[in-house]
Amino acid sequence: MLYITSPHTSRQYDRELEDIRARVLLMGQFVAQQVSESVESLVKGDAEQARKIINNEYQVDAMDISIDEECTQILACRQPAASDLRLVVAVIKIITDLERIGDGAERISRAAIRSSKWDTPSNIYESIKSLASYTLAMLYDSLEAFEKMDMEIALEVATKDPQVDAQYEGILRQLITYMIEDPRNISWAVELLWVGRTVERIGDHVRNICEYVIYLVKGKDVRHVGLKDIEQIVRDK
Amino acid sequence: MLYITSPHTSRQYDRELEDIRARVLLMGQFVAQQVSESVESLVKGDAEQARKIINNEYQVDAMDISIDEECTQILACRQPAASDLRLVVAVIKIITDLERIGDGAERISRAAIRSSKWDTPSNIYESIKSLASYTLAMLYDSLEAFEKMDMEIALEVATKDPQVDAQYEGILRQLITYMIEDPRNISWAVELLWVGRTVERIGDHVRNICEYVIYLVKGKDVRHVGLKDIEQIVRDK
Repeated sequence: MLYITSPHTSRQYDRELEDIRARVLLMGQFVAQQVSESVESLVKGDAEQARKIINNEYQVDAMDISIDEECTQILACRQPAASDLRLVVAVIKIITDLERIGDGAERISRAAIRSSKWDTPSNIYESIKSLASYTLAMLYDSLEAFEKMDMEIALEVATKDPQVDAQYEGILRQLITYMIEDPRNISWAVELLWVGRTVERIGDHVRNICEYVIYLVKGKDVRHVGLKDIEQIVRDK
Repeated sequence: MLYITSPHTSRQYDRELEDIRARVLLMGQFVAQQVSESVESLVKGDAEQARKIINNEYQVDAMDISIDEECTQILACRQPAASDLRLVVAVIKIITDLERIGDGAERISRAAIRSSKWDTPSNIYESIKSLASYTLAMLYDSLEAFEKMDMEIALEVATKDPQVDAQYEGILRQLITYMIEDPRNISWAVELLWVGRTVERIGDHVRNICEYVIYLVKGKDVRHVGLKDIEQIVRDK
């Protein structure tokens, strides 16, 4: 403890902070991959692929726990202050959202296994695929915002969340129409309602991540404020 | 900083820790109240009450932000170690779950406003009420577990989560039956699907809270392990 500010220890500390950042990015990429493949398995009706994704979910959980432990370790041993402290707190929160995105991939995969037996119209799959692509692009951008500590990117991504909600509402209407048309559509349509909702919730998690990035850079908690106010805070020099 | 271990400062520090604990409990009780009233407004078709709950949601957000700030403050100024550090980290996580339970109450209230115009069979409301009561009792017990730092209570509550899932599955089946019977039921049934799902997710959040309580007392991360393993860890002296 005596040497806490010596160049060596300080470099070591920097490396630890760098390490959790790198691991968050890895976790984010892995989770995005899981989501992407889960939607693919659903659209292709590939139950085998879906099972593989479910089997990989433990890796997300393991990353969650080990990054979490590293954060607590840093809090205990390094007593970070100011922006370092904000980084550690933000990471603790970001990985919670990433982990829940991972849960979403698992949920979509389970739906993929069940729905691989059904004969679902392809246009509804197209809508879900397009919603998922849009949301995944947001997820990748939010990771870039975190990597570069770039508030502008974070703000831009957060601003897209209402677009996800709107697309999701469209899918919901489509599905209800199918259900009304023929009661035999109800089972698969309910299943796809969950899938749509899950993707829409992934959008919410991405928005949370962007809000943590803004908190990280700006030192201001921008959760629970409207998009307009977030913009104001980001622009505020 | 020189007086960090003087009786006065230490008492002050204890008070700060006591304060965040008390505020988590207050937040938890408020959120539970919101959920309880949202379900009541749904069952009674009381759009007025539902609007009141939505208007109160900002209070949950405010508690979330201010407890969060207090935690970061304690991390920065007190550099807590061991069980104090675990308390602060657990609180940061618990309030995230409480805040999302609050979001759930808001979502149920919005459904209550929309569904107040429909003529929904009372037995389905009874099922939802019963699921909500069961989940709310779990939430109150999880708060008690946190208040008393009681792992046994936490374990008992976590063990009940599969029961919530099973009740929810029952509601899902009931609703699908209504949809198949008559397409005119589809709109309200889809609305109530979301409500059922929201309550089921509240059960997941309660389970998370219990896992954080066990982490708090035991110092072991019990997320992502099966209920049997959690029990093993709790029983492990």
